[in-house]
Amino acid sequence: MIRAASLAFLSLLPFSAAIAQATPAAPANVFGYHDFAAQAKWDKAFLAIPDAKLAGQHLKILTSAPHWASSPEDYKTAQYVEEKFKAAGLETHIVPYRVLLNKPVKIVVEAFGASGQKLMSGPTPEHVDPAVDGGDPFQDDPRILPAFNGSSPSGDVTAEVVYANYGTLADFKKLDELGISVKGKIVLVRYGNNFRGVKVYIAQQRGAKGVLIYSDPADDGYFRGDAYPKGAYRPESAVQRGSTQFLPIYPGDPETPGVASTVDLPDSQRIPADKLQNNQPSIPANPLSYKDAAPILRALAGPGVPHDWQGALPFAYHLGGDKAVTVHMHLEQDIALRTIWDVVGTIEGSDPAQKDDWVVAGNHRDAWVYGAVDPNSGTAAMLETVHGLGDLLKQGWKPKRRIVVCSWDAEEEGLIGSTEWVEQHQEPLRHAVAYFNTDVGVSGPSFNAAAVPSLKQFVSEVTYEVPSPKGGSVHEQWVKDQREQATSSRRSRPAADASRPEAALDVKIGTLGSGSDYTPFIQHTGVPSTDIGSDGPYGVYHSVFDNYNWFIRNADPTFVYEQQQARVFGLEILHMANADVLPYDYSLYGREILGYLDDARQQATRAGLQLDFTAAQAAAERFAKAGIAVHTRQVAATGNEAALNHALREAETALLDPDGLPNRPWYRHTIYAPGEFTGYAAVVIPGVTEAIDVPDAARAKAQIVALAAALSRSAAILEGAGK
Amino acid sequence: MIRAASLAFLSLLPFSAAIAQATPAAPANVFGYHDFAAQAKWDKAFLAIPDAKLAGQHLKILTSAPHWASSPEDYKTAQYVEEKFKAAGLETHIVPYRVLLNKPVKIVVEAFGASGQKLMSGPTPEHVDPAVDGGDPFQDDPRILPAFNGSSPSGDVTAEVVYANYGTLADFKKLDELGISVKGKIVLVRYGNNFRGVKVYIAQQRGAKGVLIYSDPADDGYFRGDAYPKGAYRPESAVQRGSTQFLPIYPGDPETPGVASTVDLPDSQRIPADKLQNNQPSIPANPLSYKDAAPILRALAGPGVPHDWQGALPFAYHLGGDKAVTVHMHLEQDIALRTIWDVVGTIEGSDPAQKDDWVVAGNHRDAWVYGAVDPNSGTAAMLETVHGLGDLLKQGWKPKRRIVVCSWDAEEEGLIGSTEWVEQHQEPLRHAVAYFNTDVGVSGPSFNAAAVPSLKQFVSEVTYEVPSPKGGSVHEQWVKDQREQATSSRRSRPAADASRPEAALDVKIGTLGSGSDYTPFIQHTGVPSTDIGSDGPYGVYHSVFDNYNWFIRNADPTFVYEQQQARVFGLEILHMANADVLPYDYSLYGREILGYLDDARQQATRAGLQLDFTAAQAAAERFAKAGIAVHTRQVAATGNEAALNHALREAETALLDPDGLPNRPWYRHTIYAPGEFTGYAAVVIPGVTEAIDVPDAARAKAQIVALAAALSRSAAILEGAGK
Repeated sequence: MIRAASLAFLSLLPFSAAIAQATPAAPANVFGYHDFAAQAKWDKAFLAIPDAKLAGQHLKILTSAPHWASSPEDYKTAQYVEEKFKAAGLETHIVPYRVLLNKPVKIVVEAFGASGQKLMSGPTPEHVDPAVDGGDPFQDDPRILPAFNGSSPSGDVTAEVVYANYGTLADFKKLDELGISVKGKIVLVRYGNNFRGVKVYIAQQRGAKGVLIYSDPADDGYFRGDAYPKGAYRPESAVQRGSTQFLPIYPGDPETPGVASTVDLPDSQRIPADKLQNNQPSIPANPLSYKDAAPILRALAGPGVPHDWQGALPFAYHLGGDKAVTVHMHLEQDIALRTIWDVVGTIEGSDPAQKDDWVVAGNHRDAWVYGAVDPNSGTAAMLETVHGLGDLLKQGWKPKRRIVVCSWDAEEEGLIGSTEWVEQHQEPLRHAVAYFNTDVGVSGPSFNAAAVPSLKQFVSEVTYEVPSPKGGSVHEQWVKDQREQATSSRRSRPAADASRPEAALDVKIGTLGSGSDYTPFIQHTGVPSTDIGSDGPYGVYHSVFDNYNWFIRNADPTFVYEQQQARVFGLEILHMANADVLPYDYSLYGREILGYLDDARQQATRAGLQLDFTAAQAAAERFAKAGIAVHTRQVAATGNEAALNHALREAETALLDPDGLPNRPWYRHTIYAPGEFTGYAAVVIPGVTEAIDVPDAARAKAQIVALAAALSRSAAILEGAGK
Repeated sequence: MIRAASLAFLSLLPFSAAIAQATPAAPANVFGYHDFAAQAKWDKAFLAIPDAKLAGQHLKILTSAPHWASSPEDYKTAQYVEEKFKAAGLETHIVPYRVLLNKPVKIVVEAFGASGQKLMSGPTPEHVDPAVDGGDPFQDDPRILPAFNGSSPSGDVTAEVVYANYGTLADFKKLDELGISVKGKIVLVRYGNNFRGVKVYIAQQRGAKGVLIYSDPADDGYFRGDAYPKGAYRPESAVQRGSTQFLPIYPGDPETPGVASTVDLPDSQRIPADKLQNNQPSIPANPLSYKDAAPILRALAGPGVPHDWQGALPFAYHLGGDKAVTVHMHLEQDIALRTIWDVVGTIEGSDPAQKDDWVVAGNHRDAWVYGAVDPNSGTAAMLETVHGLGDLLKQGWKPKRRIVVCSWDAEEEGLIGSTEWVEQHQEPLRHAVAYFNTDVGVSGPSFNAAAVPSLKQFVSEVTYEVPSPKGGSVHEQWVKDQREQATSSRRSRPAADASRPEAALDVKIGTLGSGSDYTPFIQHTGVPSTDIGSDGPYGVYHSVFDNYNWFIRNADPTFVYEQQQARVFGLEILHMANADVLPYDYSLYGREILGYLDDARQQATRAGLQLDFTAAQAAAERFAKAGIAVHTRQVAATGNEAALNHALREAETALLDPDGLPNRPWYRHTIYAPGEFTGYAAVVIPGVTEAIDVPDAARAKAQIVALAAALSRSAAILEGAGK
């Protein structure tokens, strides 16, 4: 994934004694089913199939070579996935797209001191001592590309260096306060806190000449625990590659926003490469290990940093901005149209009235290098999910709705494979009932999920049926993990959270921001989405060391969490494919939106804006009320519910604003978007809150109107649903 | 001081626009004066005298050699102070005491790896590279004692090592949870969070064989800023010396609790050296630099540490407790009765009715090495205060009350010089009206104070008259500093604080815990006390590098904060010596105590104790009400107020419990004591709260009774005062 795994959204939740159970049993009733008994039988048959050992084999084969998107090795992984899909009985195709990707030809980053002495000549290849803690068997493969940033242009720049902490908007504003300009400078920032493309986006807006992004040991290195190969954290030479695309503007092939980059797309429908300023940085950026960043940071002069800008390198950090350090970055990128390959497998639906209401599930396959965790722990699990679906088909099972399983390519460069496919299938996806994503399937033993509010209860519910390798059900362990995480955390839960609507669930389920393939589904197309995985300490993200050896030493040596992941992912598909009534919970959705409005009102007050929220508040209350009412009708419904289901699905589409967000029309969802200045983290009711952030009262007013309209549209649909 | 300087008590406070003024002017009215005009004239005359340059000269002379308590160089500093006191016209004596002090003869600390290889052989002498950043001109003096801990016994122990973070009670309990025993081990702890004697106290109770206390760069080294000589923070070889006396049991000469160790005290009145278990550790302890601690920490095996136990050394910390590291500590201490020298200067009082109501002011003079900041920045300022008092005397000024200025010795070993003197003068001190302490007079530009609640308003008030080198008054800058500190702090102010009684003041004034010479005054004797100083980044506490060179590079190059300190300290004395009505604010005192009771009730609930607070609550409310009423009478009073003043002073004495605290009867104050498990930090209504902590319901009940009785006694006195 292009987003680093995080346990940050975990928080204290009351432990529900009711769910403590020795072994998971199918629940008597599940939201969406008139009678769960038949489904429970199929669930049981399904759960028996995903195999830990086979998942391990998939993972080993998929990660045997570096398989960067568009490479021959990437194509081989596509063929492997195609073969497994077909073996399971899925109608399967490799779907190519032609998309713009940069590939590093030559990367030079070197630093000089005030008197011209060389401080560092890099980048240093990623390497651990083969004689210590078993070394690493994968690090010497000649096919490994030098560490680079996706979407970086070529460039040859020399400039003084300014350290800008995480490169958030607040960090750059702090530099302004301190009188340090980044204009004409190379900005050195550390990974973390926001999407790396946003770091470059802000630096570029402020006139920086280039950006270096390094991994501070405070964030995923020794400060967190032992470094690989002794432990799970980032060793000194390890680099985090990654895209610096301006993802919050739009994802996918930079040349074709809103249009699918099919192999036969005429050039006339592409934005010329020299007119991509909206989405592609104009200044060069490159990642660094802390081994290479340390000599620069150590030599930086200028004022000492604000206290919370200090990282874990063993010296006091300085802001720079003087002549103490000069860096020369020379990046030669081969930026060209390259072919990538999604793999798409289909199981037809059997209900004539609902067979075109797709259930889509997906995971990306491309990796910056080996990608054992990111993404192929997800791929290996998904293949065992498909294995299970195949066996069910042989046993006579039939899904009501069409199931579409996708192996995306070029996610790492900016969600490209998924975005192009979604852009190509806008019409059928208007009534797709769900998109289930998994990216990092397994980096450790802690199950985690994010979802649109209407599917939070749904995700929670499927985990009751799946056994955990730790005993009991996945759900039980999920609750327990969150409780322990909260107890051991130094940060206590913000008091305000206790009254939050999600407190109605006994697990905290995150909000979908961006950084993985659900973005084109939910935020561009309005397909209700979830994202699941099983997390743990994972410091080697996007480095050479995210490989099979790291995985079996740190994440899941016996692949039992792979098996768990395959099972949970599979139950999501099974339940959504055959539910009588679509199990969307608009009542929780409504409560969450009311909370967002409360926050926005407070935010406006703090910003000194006089905004009239009356219309949006009334619409949100109407939506919330309609959500509660339709929930009752969903529970009570009997017989063929195609019309109710159609309306339930339409209610999500109605939350899209066809005009999209200001300055980024590709993002059309009025409730969720990746933040313009966060990238990964969701901004809620984004049109409104980002206008308040500016602050821009006129824009905020217009966005309140748009939000109220969307909520009213959706409420009206819900009011009519099932009547 | 034996306590590290801290800005931790700073917090967000509303900025009072009313006090913004270009230059400070004497206020028209000051609490305690019928008519402030006459006093304002003397204040003005006084403020003109303390001289920055002279303060710098005092500092340079006082810190020209290491002057550990009882050393010949220490005696020379006593003579210097005596000479200056006498020159100002004070009746001055050097007052000797004979007290038990340990002096290191031989200190060996060495570490070995699992296969017996030597990891470290120390302690390494404190030394910075003379060629870098100007080096340090003081570090090579042969009179510097090796770094050691006061009160450590001799010992020769060899054991495996366990890392116990800061060595707080919570840290040791966490080790229990993790199944790591410290029994028979050498415990390696880092400085910070609690008093070092408490670290040893807990380790000893749990069967440790020895304790090593090191300075982690996270706490006062490069993680905070540049190390000396480039910056103000601790360089890698610098060691924090310090007492490991069990100060929370009792301070002073270990052999004479409650009794003055005069030179002629017969041995029969001393506790024999082998029966000092209450106050002196039985296991050896020694401080280490992080240079010496790093090889041990790096080699430690066992489980990784909890996240917040990780320091700033560049590797992942482990708990140890296995065979990975063995340490050999061989300490030879010469433990003997040694002579120390207080210097006491007196100005007689002129009011026959109140001349025996002493105003005492003091600062210690002894240092672990050079002590430029701790304590001689305070001594230099105090000498300029005395200079000012002397000039006033020549101008015809007369204090109503006797002024006693004290230069304490052997504070570093456990507040010994002050404690012995206080124990010797119990009778006159029963009606001493105040003790004004300064220890670290200046380590930087941020004025700070702690005080008993009745004197918080008083301290705040004197700072309006003193100009700040930053412009405006000290008070104005104090408010501003606290506001900025709060803004830049990542920790937001706890919401509960907003309703705290001290919010009535526009500056936050700390609570007196322990770690400096006010302890025998307030907590043993009930003399209302304050502690003031001017703080800044100060990472060389108790090391060789706390010297004149550090001071002029980091703290106060032109001694203008020395001058400020002399002025504020002097105004405290002037105002208290001549106030018509003693300016004690019992109304704030009452509100604070009511807050403490609220907290204790909540604490009891959390601990599951059923305690009846009714009597204490009623007594506290009565005390608070009496405080408000007497405040009105204080403001309205006219004429000779000796009787009112006597009662006001008696109200503080009434808060003492003659039986003292459980297990530590030397501490008699029912509202304030150093915490048994914190040492530095005050525990409020200590009898009650520490009983709840145990938890011990019976003891808590008895202590609630004692507290109620003290508050009732005091309230009754206040009710009668001035009637």
